[in-house]
Amino acid sequence: MTAPPADPGSPLGLHRVVEPAGVLPQAAWRLDARAAIWPDEVRVRLGRLNLDAASYPQLHDAHGGDPGAMRSAVLGIVAERGKMQNPVTGSGGMLTGVVDEVGPASPLGLRPGEPVATLVSLSLTPLAITDGLARWDARSEQVPCAGHAILFGRSIATVLPGDLPGPLALAALDVCGAPALTRRVVAARRDPAVAVIGAAGKSGSLSVAAARRAGAGRVIGVVRDEREAADLRSAARPGHALADAVAVADARDSVALADAVAGAGGPADVTVVCVDVPGCEGGAVLATRTPGGTVIFFSMATSFSAAALGAEGLAADVSMLIGNGYVPGHAELALGLIRDHPGVRSLFENRIHAEGGRP
Amino acid sequence: MTAPPADPGSPLGLHRVVEPAGVLPQAAWRLDARAAIWPDEVRVRLGRLNLDAASYPQLHDAHGGDPGAMRSAVLGIVAERGKMQNPVTGSGGMLTGVVDEVGPASPLGLRPGEPVATLVSLSLTPLAITDGLARWDARSEQVPCAGHAILFGRSIATVLPGDLPGPLALAALDVCGAPALTRRVVAARRDPAVAVIGAAGKSGSLSVAAARRAGAGRVIGVVRDEREAADLRSAARPGHALADAVAVADARDSVALADAVAGAGGPADVTVVCVDVPGCEGGAVLATRTPGGTVIFFSMATSFSAAALGAEGLAADVSMLIGNGYVPGHAELALGLIRDHPGVRSLFENRIHAEGGRP
Repeated sequence: MTAPPADPGSPLGLHRVVEPAGVLPQAAWRLDARAAIWPDEVRVRLGRLNLDAASYPQLHDAHGGDPGAMRSAVLGIVAERGKMQNPVTGSGGMLTGVVDEVGPASPLGLRPGEPVATLVSLSLTPLAITDGLARWDARSEQVPCAGHAILFGRSIATVLPGDLPGPLALAALDVCGAPALTRRVVAARRDPAVAVIGAAGKSGSLSVAAARRAGAGRVIGVVRDEREAADLRSAARPGHALADAVAVADARDSVALADAVAGAGGPADVTVVCVDVPGCEGGAVLATRTPGGTVIFFSMATSFSAAALGAEGLAADVSMLIGNGYVPGHAELALGLIRDHPGVRSLFENRIHAEGGRP
Repeated sequence: MTAPPADPGSPLGLHRVVEPAGVLPQAAWRLDARAAIWPDEVRVRLGRLNLDAASYPQLHDAHGGDPGAMRSAVLGIVAERGKMQNPVTGSGGMLTGVVDEVGPASPLGLRPGEPVATLVSLSLTPLAITDGLARWDARSEQVPCAGHAILFGRSIATVLPGDLPGPLALAALDVCGAPALTRRVVAARRDPAVAVIGAAGKSGSLSVAAARRAGAGRVIGVVRDEREAADLRSAARPGHALADAVAVADARDSVALADAVAGAGGPADVTVVCVDVPGCEGGAVLATRTPGGTVIFFSMATSFSAAALGAEGLAADVSMLIGNGYVPGHAELALGLIRDHPGVRSLFENRIHAEGGRP
């Protein structure tokens, strides 16, 4: 280990930006991922990466699911960019690991040896991988690996809970912004009807649970097929369904989606988009009450122009929110919902299991 | 003219979607632009197109500004897609023309012979061009042309005002969603500090004027250079500056942008992004008060993932709105601001003049 750099760093990590100059780490093409830390930084020994729900399928499809090619792709991105930011999707994911070294000026309150998850995207986190991803079979978005990552002064990390298995906690924390923002938007209205598109997925099921807890008058879970509908219906506590109504529709078919939500008690006062496929913008707008409804887009596959022009083209007076991954208290909320809703927990565990067996 | 189709149409224009099936016109690759109208449609005889602020520069740069190549490009897109939706930017623009035929079931209240502007995007408007764009010198985003366009039952159009020159009204209506949403967001707060990024531009200057009228406590206009700063300062009424402070910064330089806003009285409670260049997301977030501020993205160059992940990466608890081009009353507001603010009108006239002389 070389001595830490002597010059003061930036809490935003600007000192790690190699190119282009002047941009924030998220917007940078390449970061300096050296292991030596600045005084306000923290170095984490990698445990696993959790590639995000847009990036993993893109890599999988681009390489025909070939494990060797997918390993090479991830290694190539990290080697070239100093971070795991998928150049096609622009997105990253998150990671877990163990705190290795804490700079004397770090404000994060972490201690060496603590197991942590980062709650800022891999797309801005300096990263180096040292084991060639030899333990990743590429069948899951969770990537066991060795190496290090750097946290800045203004990064967010949380100590992993002792009562939940690591992969489960990681999967919940990966999407924790969605239930937190859903809670905030729902709680600001009186008994709203809430539609969650992709309700049997990870961010979706947590958002359904968060909407219910925040006082939704009715929660409509939209899923893509009968299998997911059964999954969602099974995610109930005795006597308490997770969603009040379950509707089946292809979210890319705008009219079918709007009809499904309308038939389940819509239009929605709040629509939460949690499906990571392109082309859901118009249907989400069409499923939402106008005037006055709100659409929250969490999918990284959302097209800004499709949303903006789509709403305009429908003369739909709705508010459209970009799903900010950071809302204070988001980690605690997501972990709490997993603990309190065995049905949601089961959905997560089944997903994690299925991904481990992804063909 | 063939007889109008006998089958009932959809107010959303679904009957005009050729491929792929089931999507809304905005998301379609190709529309049926035949001249015969369905009972609830209106056909407009084209006067001019106004390519949007993302599409025109893309076409200009892609073809090195060559007028023949740019004409061919626009003609090719319209011929292939049945609408003027730039395949690279996804955006369109708007148009003016004269009402040619009104279907018996049209709810729009238009009459043949009226001069109108459409307030829904060209990206979803069936369009046919018949003059080869012979009158367009490609030096301006305003494209004189002959042909027809189709309005659906749920489209929005406005009769052009008699007291404003056509190009001026068209330019104002093209961006009228920005001041309208700015007004709504600003009016919901108490004396907020508002930063408008790109304040000397068309949507920017209208948003500055709208923010002031809606009760902003302080309006900070951010521009890219001293020439634009002088333009914005000159856009004052006697004794009443348009913006309280004018700051110069490159919006792609996140830290410089945030510093400029801070130095001019920020951070902003509301930041309005009106510059059509990529890479402004991080700076806009960084210039905004956290927790509790709001960023409104109007630029079609906005990257959804860059905004979502950028805010998360900065641990910035801000609301981020996708600029919906439709807000009730938006046309009247924009035209009223042009009438009431000679300085804003001058900015528009200078821009229109300069674009006519674009090298």
